[in-house]
Amino acid sequence: MIHTLIEKIQKTHAPIVVGLDPMLSYVPQHILDKAFAEFGETPEGAAEAIWKYNKGIIDAVYDLIPAVKPQIAMYEQFGIEGLKAFQKTVDYCHEKGLVVIGDVKRGDIGSTSAAYATGHLGKVQIGSKAFSTFNEDFATVNPYLGTDGIKPFVDVCKEEKKGLFILVKTSNPSSGEFQDRLIDGRPLYEYVGEKVAQWGADCMGDSYSYIGAVVGATYPKQGEILRKLMPKSFILVPGYGAQGGKGADLVHFFNDDGLGAIVNSSRGIIAAYKQEQYASFGALNYADASRQAVVDMIADIDGALQAAK
Amino acid sequence: MIHTLIEKIQKTHAPIVVGLDPMLSYVPQHILDKAFAEFGETPEGAAEAIWKYNKGIIDAVYDLIPAVKPQIAMYEQFGIEGLKAFQKTVDYCHEKGLVVIGDVKRGDIGSTSAAYATGHLGKVQIGSKAFSTFNEDFATVNPYLGTDGIKPFVDVCKEEKKGLFILVKTSNPSSGEFQDRLIDGRPLYEYVGEKVAQWGADCMGDSYSYIGAVVGATYPKQGEILRKLMPKSFILVPGYGAQGGKGADLVHFFNDDGLGAIVNSSRGIIAAYKQEQYASFGALNYADASRQAVVDMIADIDGALQAAK
Repeated sequence: MIHTLIEKIQKTHAPIVVGLDPMLSYVPQHILDKAFAEFGETPEGAAEAIWKYNKGIIDAVYDLIPAVKPQIAMYEQFGIEGLKAFQKTVDYCHEKGLVVIGDVKRGDIGSTSAAYATGHLGKVQIGSKAFSTFNEDFATVNPYLGTDGIKPFVDVCKEEKKGLFILVKTSNPSSGEFQDRLIDGRPLYEYVGEKVAQWGADCMGDSYSYIGAVVGATYPKQGEILRKLMPKSFILVPGYGAQGGKGADLVHFFNDDGLGAIVNSSRGIIAAYKQEQYASFGALNYADASRQAVVDMIADIDGALQAAK
Repeated sequence: MIHTLIEKIQKTHAPIVVGLDPMLSYVPQHILDKAFAEFGETPEGAAEAIWKYNKGIIDAVYDLIPAVKPQIAMYEQFGIEGLKAFQKTVDYCHEKGLVVIGDVKRGDIGSTSAAYATGHLGKVQIGSKAFSTFNEDFATVNPYLGTDGIKPFVDVCKEEKKGLFILVKTSNPSSGEFQDRLIDGRPLYEYVGEKVAQWGADCMGDSYSYIGAVVGATYPKQGEILRKLMPKSFILVPGYGAQGGKGADLVHFFNDDGLGAIVNSSRGIIAAYKQEQYASFGALNYADASRQAVVDMIADIDGALQAAK
């Protein structure tokens, strides 16, 4: 799957991923009205609204991008109905040829981690039959529990040719509380990065491992160090746009081959129509605003990468 | 909710929690056969089997215990149908008067953490209406992302009178890879424990905070230190039984008031009939074996607590 991701990045010239993190407050009124008219102000209605909202965005941007990253929390908050919309979104993105990174940040140990890996990336055995359930292509995983938490995911990735992005240095302001603590003079996130490189070493595609890392766009200097510590790991970079990261901050997340990173934007793309810059599209044309925001993001990042050459 | 938990512990004399972590391999053949006959070897069939299996155990043990801890991964692996069984299990445990600790180990930042908190502990707003979705009483949370990841959960807990158990020192063999790393001579888990105490300080019930911690039974010495670092935090203690922890190892997880810890056993209780000690019950009477295992666990832990007085 890392091979597919790289191919798609090269074809689109877009090392970016659109975060499908719908909040009801982002969904244009006409979509909400229609969903609530059909299903009422219920979890079914909310799920229908976010699914239709997603579908509009996917239809508008799928040809420009290699991948999407649905954030499962935004669906899970609506319970079973929300998770049905998550599954529909994943399936529809696959229909449109997109790589799907499930932003699930799961992490547990042993058979429990194996169950998460099975549910999100693998196949679950039921009697004599095997079923794919959520069926993402990549999943994000939390490393706090150590190798016991990661290995079951790695095993499923090997079998299914899928991949992981393991949290190393997250984009949020308080990420340093634990991740930056110094151990023999070096921050914890460097040790986690080294482990990611080790876990990924026997999970190689052609040039990159399918075990990658998450490093926030808001920490460009740390990104530069981690890039070198994990030369064969793809880095998923959240925090672009709404969280403050800019294209020029991101060049050191990439290797000299122009690969090695994929930059996420969620709100900046999916709720573009709510920003001053794209307000003229109007809520009815929210998906066109998202498309323009994708075009602009690609230009920003590609421009920064070209300027850095 | 911490008040309810403490009351129930005092009433049952059982500072224990039964982990409802069903694997299909634990489910007795007669339950599997019936579920598959009705729904086929499908996710619906698997979900029906684990729900019926759970119900048997809950009916057999609910009067002995204060709380259960369903591990959501074991349901999530079966996708939407599995999560319906999770929800049914949570609802049924509430009907039987049990406190439900959702072992979800979620953790993200900002609006994403808020969405998880809403989905598991709070109410989601849909138009003019609010809905409880998964509706557990406590949830386990991963601290790797720092305060940004925890605060949205704490806010929901304050509003809903619910609670958290934050991972501090996990029970697995490799938990030390990051959690034991020394920072100025002290392991990371102590810093996380101190943060748990801080986060919990303005979340007090009568005598304990509703912001608790997870510390593995397999690390009794670390448990003793953490007990003192977080005097007002309840500690959820996994790793008893199948993972190797014993009652005598656990006395220092408790405070002098005999409270402050709740010990989980999953496989040791729910799959008791598969152990030599309880094999005479047979698969048909698996729930009676679980009841006996609960009685024995209470005696082991209560005995150890009495002996330590």
